Amino acid sequence: MTLATGRPFLMIPGPTNVPEEVLRAMHRPAVDIYVGPLVELTDNCLRDLKTIFRTQGKTFIYASNGHGGWESALTNTLSRGDKVLVLDSGRFARGWGEMAAVLGLDVEILPGDWRKAVDAEALQARLDADRDGAIKAVLVVQVDTASGVINDIARLRKAIDAAGHNALFLVDTIASLGCVPFEMDAWGVDVALTGAQKGLMTPPGLAFVAANEKALAAHEHADLKTQYWDWTFRLGEEHYQKYCGTPPEHLLFGFREALDILMKEGLDASHRRHRLLGEAVRKAVNVWAKDGALEMNILEEAERSNSVTVVLTPGLDPAALMRFCEETCNVKLSGTIGEINGLGFRIGHMGYVNAPMVIGTLGAIEMGLAALKVPHGRGGVQAAVDHLTSAVSE
Amino acid sequence: MTLATGRPFLMIPGPTNVPEEVLRAMHRPAVDIYVGPLVELTDNCLRDLKTIFRTQGKTFIYASNGHGGWESALTNTLSRGDKVLVLDSGRFARGWGEMAAVLGLDVEILPGDWRKAVDAEALQARLDADRDGAIKAVLVVQVDTASGVINDIARLRKAIDAAGHNALFLVDTIASLGCVPFEMDAWGVDVALTGAQKGLMTPPGLAFVAANEKALAAHEHADLKTQYWDWTFRLGEEHYQKYCGTPPEHLLFGFREALDILMKEGLDASHRRHRLLGEAVRKAVNVWAKDGALEMNILEEAERSNSVTVVLTPGLDPAALMRFCEETCNVKLSGTIGEINGLGFRIGHMGYVNAPMVIGTLGAIEMGLAALKVPHGRGGVQAAVDHLTSAVSE
Amino acid sequence: MTLATGRPFLMIPGPTNVPEEVLRAMHRPAVDIYVGPLVELTDNCLRDLKTIFRTQGKTFIYASNGHGGWESALTNTLSRGDKVLVLDSGRFARGWGEMAAVLGLDVEILPGDWRKAVDAEALQARLDADRDGAIKAVLVVQVDTASGVINDIARLRKAIDAAGHNALFLVDTIASLGCVPFEMDAWGVDVALTGAQKGLMTPPGLAFVAANEKALAAHEHADLKTQYWDWTFRLGEEHYQKYCGTPPEHLLFGFREALDILMKEGLDASHRRHRLLGEAVRKAVNVWAKDGALEMNILEEAERSNSVTVVLTPGLDPAALMRFCEETCNVKLSGTIGEINGLGFRIGHMGYVNAPMVIGTLGAIEMGLAALKVPHGRGGVQAAVDHLTSAVSE
Amino acid sequence: MTLATGRPFLMIPGPTNVPEEVLRAMHRPAVDIYVGPLVELTDNCLRDLKTIFRTQGKTFIYASNGHGGWESALTNTLSRGDKVLVLDSGRFARGWGEMAAVLGLDVEILPGDWRKAVDAEALQARLDADRDGAIKAVLVVQVDTASGVINDIARLRKAIDAAGHNALFLVDTIASLGCVPFEMDAWGVDVALTGAQKGLMTPPGLAFVAANEKALAAHEHADLKTQYWDWTFRLGEEHYQKYCGTPPEHLLFGFREALDILMKEGLDASHRRHRLLGEAVRKAVNVWAKDGALEMNILEEAERSNSVTVVLTPGLDPAALMRFCEETCNVKLSGTIGEINGLGFRIGHMGYVNAPMVIGTLGAIEMGLAALKVPHGRGGVQAAVDHLTSAVSE
Repeated sequence: MTLATGRPFLMIPGPTNVPEEVLRAMHRPAVDIYVGPLVELTDNCLRDLKTIFRTQGKTFIYASNGHGGWESALTNTLSRGDKVLVLDSGRFARGWGEMAAVLGLDVEILPGDWRKAVDAEALQARLDADRDGAIKAVLVVQVDTASGVINDIARLRKAIDAAGHNALFLVDTIASLGCVPFEMDAWGVDVALTGAQKGLMTPPGLAFVAANEKALAAHEHADLKTQYWDWTFRLGEEHYQKYCGTPPEHLLFGFREALDILMKEGLDASHRRHRLLGEAVRKAVNVWAKDGALEMNILEEAERSNSVTVVLTPGLDPAALMRFCEETCNVKLSGTIGEINGLGFRIGHMGYVNAPMVIGTLGAIEMGLAALKVPHGRGGVQAAVDHLTSAVSE
Repeated sequence: MTLATGRPFLMIPGPTNVPEEVLRAMHRPAVDIYVGPLVELTDNCLRDLKTIFRTQGKTFIYASNGHGGWESALTNTLSRGDKVLVLDSGRFARGWGEMAAVLGLDVEILPGDWRKAVDAEALQARLDADRDGAIKAVLVVQVDTASGVINDIARLRKAIDAAGHNALFLVDTIASLGCVPFEMDAWGVDVALTGAQKGLMTPPGLAFVAANEKALAAHEHADLKTQYWDWTFRLGEEHYQKYCGTPPEHLLFGFREALDILMKEGLDASHRRHRLLGEAVRKAVNVWAKDGALEMNILEEAERSNSVTVVLTPGLDPAALMRFCEETCNVKLSGTIGEINGLGFRIGHMGYVNAPMVIGTLGAIEMGLAALKVPHGRGGVQAAVDHLTSAVSE
Repeated sequence: MTLATGRPFLMIPGPTNVPEEVLRAMHRPAVDIYVGPLVELTDNCLRDLKTIFRTQGKTFIYASNGHGGWESALTNTLSRGDKVLVLDSGRFARGWGEMAAVLGLDVEILPGDWRKAVDAEALQARLDADRDGAIKAVLVVQVDTASGVINDIARLRKAIDAAGHNALFLVDTIASLGCVPFEMDAWGVDVALTGAQKGLMTPPGLAFVAANEKALAAHEHADLKTQYWDWTFRLGEEHYQKYCGTPPEHLLFGFREALDILMKEGLDASHRRHRLLGEAVRKAVNVWAKDGALEMNILEEAERSNSVTVVLTPGLDPAALMRFCEETCNVKLSGTIGEINGLGFRIGHMGYVNAPMVIGTLGAIEMGLAALKVPHGRGGVQAAVDHLTSAVSE
Repeated sequence: MTLATGRPFLMIPGPTNVPEEVLRAMHRPAVDIYVGPLVELTDNCLRDLKTIFRTQGKTFIYASNGHGGWESALTNTLSRGDKVLVLDSGRFARGWGEMAAVLGLDVEILPGDWRKAVDAEALQARLDADRDGAIKAVLVVQVDTASGVINDIARLRKAIDAAGHNALFLVDTIASLGCVPFEMDAWGVDVALTGAQKGLMTPPGLAFVAANEKALAAHEHADLKTQYWDWTFRLGEEHYQKYCGTPPEHLLFGFREALDILMKEGLDASHRRHRLLGEAVRKAVNVWAKDGALEMNILEEAERSNSVTVVLTPGLDPAALMRFCEETCNVKLSGTIGEINGLGFRIGHMGYVNAPMVIGTLGAIEMGLAALKVPHGRGGVQAAVDHLTSAVSE
């Protein structure tokens, strides 16, 4: 019994739904890379990225994925042997730390828990102890899609300041930018990076990095620099330099459309949308969770991301549930990865996602719980609808 | 407060959602019309249309919309002055009758009600009275998207047979084929017609007509024939004759993809899907309807179509509700038309539509009812989910 | 030995090359047919069609191919038994006449030659002889793609006027509008019609008809009217009436782009482009023709169309040449049809076609003539280039 | 006077023409990166890349441009302070050397001339002199699009062997792979790299690298490794590792189509096609060059690339010529860059390019020379056609 024939619902934590307009903009011939419309498009994108990162700093566009953004942040600001402190709160922070180690950095992990956000007090304590300023950079992920956590970047900044520490503050906003508030300059973030394929609604293959004055000053002396990622080279006058070679034109044409969509909605409206949709998802999960067959991975409501929800499933086979959703409803969820691989599922609700997409997705899951005879509280979908109803009725 | 940025939900009773594969197949250069792949594609489409109409008769493809299909059915089988009996059950049956009158046919309307299906007994009575067989054809619409009714074609055929009447039986399946069971041969339908843009999931611009032996025999003597619609011409050997001129190539490339999707799912599965989704929509509407602010247009559950639901809104402004759904949720509903213009709204659930699309749409409507302070029973969405849950849990 | 991998060259006399922008505009979801952007688009297209037909009359858009346009022109203006005079100059005029006969019109053919344009003096003589005005309409094709002829519409109008005859003047501009000058009002054409897929650069599936005051007056009394084609119905207020049912939305979105391209270039510039390219093609053919293996179908230069060239091939197998062009060069030519089926080939050079497309096509043909050991004058391509060079150097 | 309205001719040395099928394959929703069809596609692409590089080694796909491929080749095989010898023959070899210097390598340039290929004897002499094997790698570009040269890779390998030198041999095939013969294993190339956007007919944003056993052995000890480019990481089991993060899905879907096109034609056929088209271009240029207003940049015929032709224009303004071609013919050529910036123009004839595209392009240029009153030999287009004619007539 399938009710699946119809529009696919891609509800994974990235790559996310690509708007029709973005795909359409990519369906075109290539253009010259030295002169013509692409040159202006680059300028516009670099400028609008500042608006989105909320910074007066410099912005960079890479033909790469988000891991390339990581490498850009590290190699442009640090030197071999530098100590960096990785704030563990899930798989991606650790992954960034592993990359740092490969680069020859001295990586220290601030121990974390995959069910909680980073402990700002522990950060402050560690930095207090670093009397001689050995730690050159603090690395943190705003949202970790593996755990579903959101870290409080502003609060972490305050911890650094409270310790009077001078380390660079590098923030991965891959799974958060455009979805939740991020204030690069106001929060004192020195380097921020993201990718195209999450909140920015573009096919994967582009990374974006922003650097403030402090980061650019550190860049002067960083000895990890390599030309592909090098900010100085990319600040050159010639257009090809801005991409260190051939620009990824089609992705850029798509990205320009995506930026237009995001800026037309407005960042505040997008954040509000993601917040309400994230809350709606959690309302539903909480209803279903009554009998213990499933539970939220992140323990505290305040630490749960509005862009992705990670659900643990002690009382059911998550693969069976995901299979039901896909085969019966054409709703694609994601399995859990890393430490909790096979122990749950993930619902992506970031980027080009609206109320009926979320409600429909929750409906599919609730149908699946029943079809699989999983004990669960009924009425999860309605709880989500009621929550959204209250919000829009205010 | 908008939660709209995300995939659009096109929930109107046609044109309906076009699958990505169909649009992609249309995005290509033109081809020769005399030789090459288009010739084989035509053969395949004509053959698969027989499968879908459930007939051993002849099938025809027109560059036209559904009204062109109407004109084909009439002009190919009838002669000036012939009497035809139109079974009124909404706007489209009457529209077909108006077209017949323009052609010089003697049109009689079997009176109907826009809130009910055609009365088979009244049909039988009228045909009984037609002792000398003046009535040459009976015209009926299987589903009328203006009223949301579904007529029982098999039952109407029995009424004709019970009267021992020889009239041709012409059926418009524009808003029903692919969505609800239709058995051209088993039900004794002489001419059936449909369009591309409803259950067949293709952009508008194609009409399809099927004719059985009896219709083809009548065709021999019909004096309303014109070349554009003429079946004989289209049965010629040359490829261009099958379209009476240049084939609408891009629409055909798309239609081929849509046929593949439909036939892969299977007609039975598609009918079951539409039935369950239609029931789910009605479950929700019935919950909301408790306080009388809204009600189903069609009075009897058995006469409500599974491809479209028409809701009357005595207690609310339907335009405001539709505006809410579009602006806040990116869900596009349709206004009522014809006799009930401005008095309600219509939900299309035909073609490329699955469970989460319907659940999401119902969520948007329920949010709108609350936002507009319309008194209504809450829990409509959950009732729909529960209904689907039961179905898939069996 | 193939050199074919590369962009396909579609050089047939329709359907023609579709610009990227047009295909892109069609790659999108459907929209509501009653309200919204489609309504305005219809108005714009109807208005711009007047500009292109060069008329102050009424314009109509049909979901149909060009043969539908023929049927519209006839049924809207004539009555059963009316005599019409068809000016024979190739296959399509005769085809239109056959359609008229099926409709019950009394069709007379003014004899013509498939290698010449219509003889205006013969037309005048025939009309002079029609003392009692039995002839109600004169039918002519401006360009016949089967023969490659262009008829002198202004001259034929003068012949009608010289005879003092009152017949309607109906002109098929399917293979000419947008490519060569056409002046509906200035030339006294009463009904003109065309299709989307030739000079108008849009996928097939749309026909366009224009009618002046005299035609609209005749329309009042025409008894061949049927609703699908009926002008009166289509002049109604409601949007769906303008298409007698569901508009062919995707084709319309594409057509709007094509109109923009044509109007940006300008009609005069487009006519000049077609003239020079047509001349270039003929320069090449004339060079190749020196040894008699091939020759122009139309005998007089002044009667050769600038949108299509028909070449007879007494000294070679045209199928072999076309196969060479396609397999070795990815250039698609068209075979001859009708009376000269199998006796030559046709080069389409209408619509979205520029100088390098024509030069490249001629290069492929010249390569083919050599590869097939056909005796021919060499230097045809260069003659074409030289001709274009002179034109642009003035 | 413009004859430009028609298909654009993109005749620049990259990004090149993207086949319709490739763009169409990219116009689709994203998919999961952990499971499903993308996993198999990756395997197929990595395998087919071996066929195209002609190697039994390992292949890698990067979300990056060709400069990323450079960085991959260097960082995976070399260590800080290693000496590398760059074989100068134009802008791109030097650019690769500059990148090596930024990485901390000791870069020595074997002096070259921007009008000639690398001198194999000079290479042998330099390596003979390197008694203690200080040189760890030799870097060369097979085709330099800035000069239009092709270096003889097999001959250079022999020079290395003749010197009995153990340096790694790293070859950039960005502007050559798929267009001209390249035999990684047979020629003893240790690392080869290329990009998507030239002979491989895919939008820019992908780099491909191949490494043999010797390179993989060197990789073990290379201390320049960074995780983004690291081969070891990419040889891991998990799918995301093969891209060090999120795969650039849409570009991969497109690339898969491009590979299919290339492999269907066959490498040998593609090389022959490029050779004949390159020769045809040069035939034309040589005719035009008679009066000295223009000349080939590369002095020796044997050293001219079949994928791009660089023309110097002492007797005319190249910008005016390029403007003419674009505005009058919709043919896009490229300006010269680097040392010869502003002194000529470049014709790209690589990738998805066939005989009529080249002939049409040459036609546009010859028209331009006349329109701009440049003294030139006439008949260049015909010389090209005649050359191709001879080839296909054999």
